[in-house]
Amino acid sequence: MKPYLIGVDLGGTFIKTALITLQGDIVNKGEIPSEKESGPERVIANIGKSIQLAVKEAGQIFNQVQGIGVGAPGPLNTQKWIVCNAVNIPGFINIPLRDLIQDKFGIPVNLENDANAAGYGEYWKGAGRGSSLMVAYTLGTGVGGGIIIDGKLIRGTNDCGGELGHMTIVPDGEMCSCGNRGCVEAYASATFLVKHTAAKLKKGCPSLLTKWLEEGKILTAKLIDEARRAGDEFAGEMLLEVGYYLGLGVANVVSALNPDVVVVGGGMIKAGEIILEAVRREVKKRTFREHYEHLRIIPAALGNNAGIIGAAGLALECAESQGS
Amino acid sequence: MKPYLIGVDLGGTFIKTALITLQGDIVNKGEIPSEKESGPERVIANIGKSIQLAVKEAGQIFNQVQGIGVGAPGPLNTQKWIVCNAVNIPGFINIPLRDLIQDKFGIPVNLENDANAAGYGEYWKGAGRGSSLMVAYTLGTGVGGGIIIDGKLIRGTNDCGGELGHMTIVPDGEMCSCGNRGCVEAYASATFLVKHTAAKLKKGCPSLLTKWLEEGKILTAKLIDEARRAGDEFAGEMLLEVGYYLGLGVANVVSALNPDVVVVGGGMIKAGEIILEAVRREVKKRTFREHYEHLRIIPAALGNNAGIIGAAGLALECAESQGS
Repeated sequence: MKPYLIGVDLGGTFIKTALITLQGDIVNKGEIPSEKESGPERVIANIGKSIQLAVKEAGQIFNQVQGIGVGAPGPLNTQKWIVCNAVNIPGFINIPLRDLIQDKFGIPVNLENDANAAGYGEYWKGAGRGSSLMVAYTLGTGVGGGIIIDGKLIRGTNDCGGELGHMTIVPDGEMCSCGNRGCVEAYASATFLVKHTAAKLKKGCPSLLTKWLEEGKILTAKLIDEARRAGDEFAGEMLLEVGYYLGLGVANVVSALNPDVVVVGGGMIKAGEIILEAVRREVKKRTFREHYEHLRIIPAALGNNAGIIGAAGLALECAESQGS
Repeated sequence: MKPYLIGVDLGGTFIKTALITLQGDIVNKGEIPSEKESGPERVIANIGKSIQLAVKEAGQIFNQVQGIGVGAPGPLNTQKWIVCNAVNIPGFINIPLRDLIQDKFGIPVNLENDANAAGYGEYWKGAGRGSSLMVAYTLGTGVGGGIIIDGKLIRGTNDCGGELGHMTIVPDGEMCSCGNRGCVEAYASATFLVKHTAAKLKKGCPSLLTKWLEEGKILTAKLIDEARRAGDEFAGEMLLEVGYYLGLGVANVVSALNPDVVVVGGGMIKAGEIILEAVRREVKKRTFREHYEHLRIIPAALGNNAGIIGAAGLALECAESQGS
């Protein structure tokens, strides 16, 4: 086998790419804006650009690369290697992304759901190492999930396994980006945290954030967490709510699968224990003692790198299963 | 291998037992009341009695039996082979059921969650044959579940996988028998169907059932379905509600696992398509098109026999994996 892999994480905002060893160590990585506003063709061109940059900067040449793994949003079809509908990238519909990249670089490409890739990364090199039944959540622009049983990613019948962000937790609840109501994502994603917080501030909830916004700061999940760290009670409550709703979703997956580890990652998890404590409380309350007593609910360990490492890891798994 | 297996299905009301061939065909079966009111010791004695009857009636002798499989209400501990807490059998707590039966008969015994056993039965010999990712529900006194991926029952980290009846679908909803609120079981079990229907009748909802109850009939899920078949609109609505809430639970499992088949069994499914149509409607509404388009949501095929066939099948799987 050639000594390197490339992992790509196609996000709503950035494309992250890394050159990675077969052991899962990052040699070089970088990110460029996905420029989703400029349409799917620009996003595809940027993926190519990002791959070229990562390899070039490391001084490596493409013939030392065994495979490229791409983690992409939303429903995929890995029979036809198509991204069906990347919910967070407008117009990114029915794109044959595997073949487009494979034809460009002449290297085998594997395509996976981005949250599955991040989950697999945490299993392979991160917080979930050694787990026999691991469930991963990624809290970012959306909420993604991944399930790994006995080391095997559960892709489902047609590659839509692990859509944990679109489980319904409030039957007639908030409208979600997917078009349904009451999904985990409609309560626990950064997008909705910002939306809910803005609505409550507008209603006059007292908060440091009001002053900060008047000073010209932009309301983000990060800003809300900064306010919480500065002692703002309202900001803390907003993050606790995220944990409460995420906990409803996690409790359901725990009842269904009885995992030993739930790993929570993504940008939002920088808020850390305040969210996880609320998740644990809800899971403890809503599952059997037997479900909870051997369960660890822990933060992801790889940060932003989970997706690129996992995508590369799955490209390796794919190459190995094809005996190449 | 010896030519026969014994399958036992320990229910809240009856103990069903059958002598079964290694191919999954029933040679002889019977059921006796579990007599749960008389305490756990009586229930255990009745299990023994039921096994003896099934074998004796068939004219077989115990030395032709390869293994005994018992499906018992959950949570179990199959490291210690203990029934931790059979929710529907009062006082049936921390019972070492595997060893009690094994010591009595001198035949290897395998212990599984009853709903897991029923699900495995439907996978092995019933509606789910050939499925690559099957989810099973059992609607009875409670609501049980089972998940079979690539032919393997998902037992979970400590034997509590597949507790699909205890997924939360209404965060602050009805109190469930498990002590939590808003579980699938608190809306879609026969117990709660009867409870909700009685409450609504008391409030004066017009229904044929009121007359029937005045005539001395007892309100059961079966009676509600009979009223529906006799054209009673209210009874139909009650069954549609069961389907709606079950559908919320099924939609969540479909988002998480992307199965190709969901099999719904148990006594309540005699009401048939009225429940399943409501389930399909909710799942279609709440999952991605990709989740729904290859999914079949179908009634169980083995009726009352799913549990005994599945328990026997898992005893066989257990014997084979031990190389005996």
